[in-house]
Amino acid sequence: MPGYILPLEKLIEQFEHLPGIGHKTAVRLAFSVLEGTEEEAGAFAQAILDAKHKVVRCKVCQNLSDTEVCSVCSDPKRDRSMLCVVEDPKAVMALERVKEYNGLYHVLHGTLSPMDGIGPEQLTIRELIARLTDGEVKEILLATNPTIEGETTAVYLSKLIKPLGIRISRLAYGVPVGGDIDYADEVTLFRAIEGRRDL
Amino acid sequence: MPGYILPLEKLIEQFEHLPGIGHKTAVRLAFSVLEGTEEEAGAFAQAILDAKHKVVRCKVCQNLSDTEVCSVCSDPKRDRSMLCVVEDPKAVMALERVKEYNGLYHVLHGTLSPMDGIGPEQLTIRELIARLTDGEVKEILLATNPTIEGETTAVYLSKLIKPLGIRISRLAYGVPVGGDIDYADEVTLFRAIEGRRDL
Repeated sequence: MPGYILPLEKLIEQFEHLPGIGHKTAVRLAFSVLEGTEEEAGAFAQAILDAKHKVVRCKVCQNLSDTEVCSVCSDPKRDRSMLCVVEDPKAVMALERVKEYNGLYHVLHGTLSPMDGIGPEQLTIRELIARLTDGEVKEILLATNPTIEGETTAVYLSKLIKPLGIRISRLAYGVPVGGDIDYADEVTLFRAIEGRRDL
Repeated sequence: MPGYILPLEKLIEQFEHLPGIGHKTAVRLAFSVLEGTEEEAGAFAQAILDAKHKVVRCKVCQNLSDTEVCSVCSDPKRDRSMLCVVEDPKAVMALERVKEYNGLYHVLHGTLSPMDGIGPEQLTIRELIARLTDGEVKEILLATNPTIEGETTAVYLSKLIKPLGIRISRLAYGVPVGGDIDYADEVTLFRAIEGRRDL
């Protein structure tokens, strides 16, 4: 194709690989990179590399972290008797924005979904149970998404954990059913934490 | 902020700098980078750097290029008697997709806009006039956008070029093909009626 500028086309292609970005948006984004300074392009490229290289899983809660133990798990001011179990790191970010919850987290990295071949072994359930052996955790707040998979996972976990004599609660149905915790607004999330129910 | 993962936050911030990308989209895009492989992240970062480092302006038509003279200007099959004057490189990409136009281009990199302090010196008008001295160019198609600034620039250029005895044309205005007359604005319809052609 004449008029083809390879480095530009390659950048457009890269943007098109991102979720929800079509061709015209990709073109717009690629041109905005070209219009910026060298420093800005360098910082953007570095941010991509750093995010990929430096972000690991916290060995305690399995959340994404740039240290071996994440800042929440290593914070002495957090309430260690409370664990909030979430599906993914985005849910932790959403809950942290509310500033209401002061316990620790456990990130499952998915939900039970037998249709997709995802059983308990594919999630971080083994790591979760291991955290409950020393008796420090008194309550577990199940904050999986209010979807079929999220509910299934919550029921599975409650059956697994109840025999250990730990209080189990579930986020209240302040979060819109069928929605996604990542996209809930702060007030809704606040109500959901406040109105948590025993299972 | 507890739960803050610096490399991730930095990447989200970088995505937020892009035009039309809000916080939630930026989070989604950043996570999609994290979910990809190291190679994919590396290729993305490299594409940004390459686009910024390797893309320069063609010294003939001022369009973006990865070579000193762009592939259109150096193509012996293009009609050198015809110049299409556009505002920006995106317009060249759009016109090239049509595959109908076989002449050369000249990219102004903007439009006249005295309110924003953009006069003829800020555009590549000097370079355009220099291309017209050898008498090779017989026609200039003014393809600036149908906006006030685009019109002003077209009128300015036509006044400047007419004394050189070169034919000057302008892209036709009208209802877009596949569009709906009901949704066309009054000005477009007025131009479409004004520019009606015999069948």
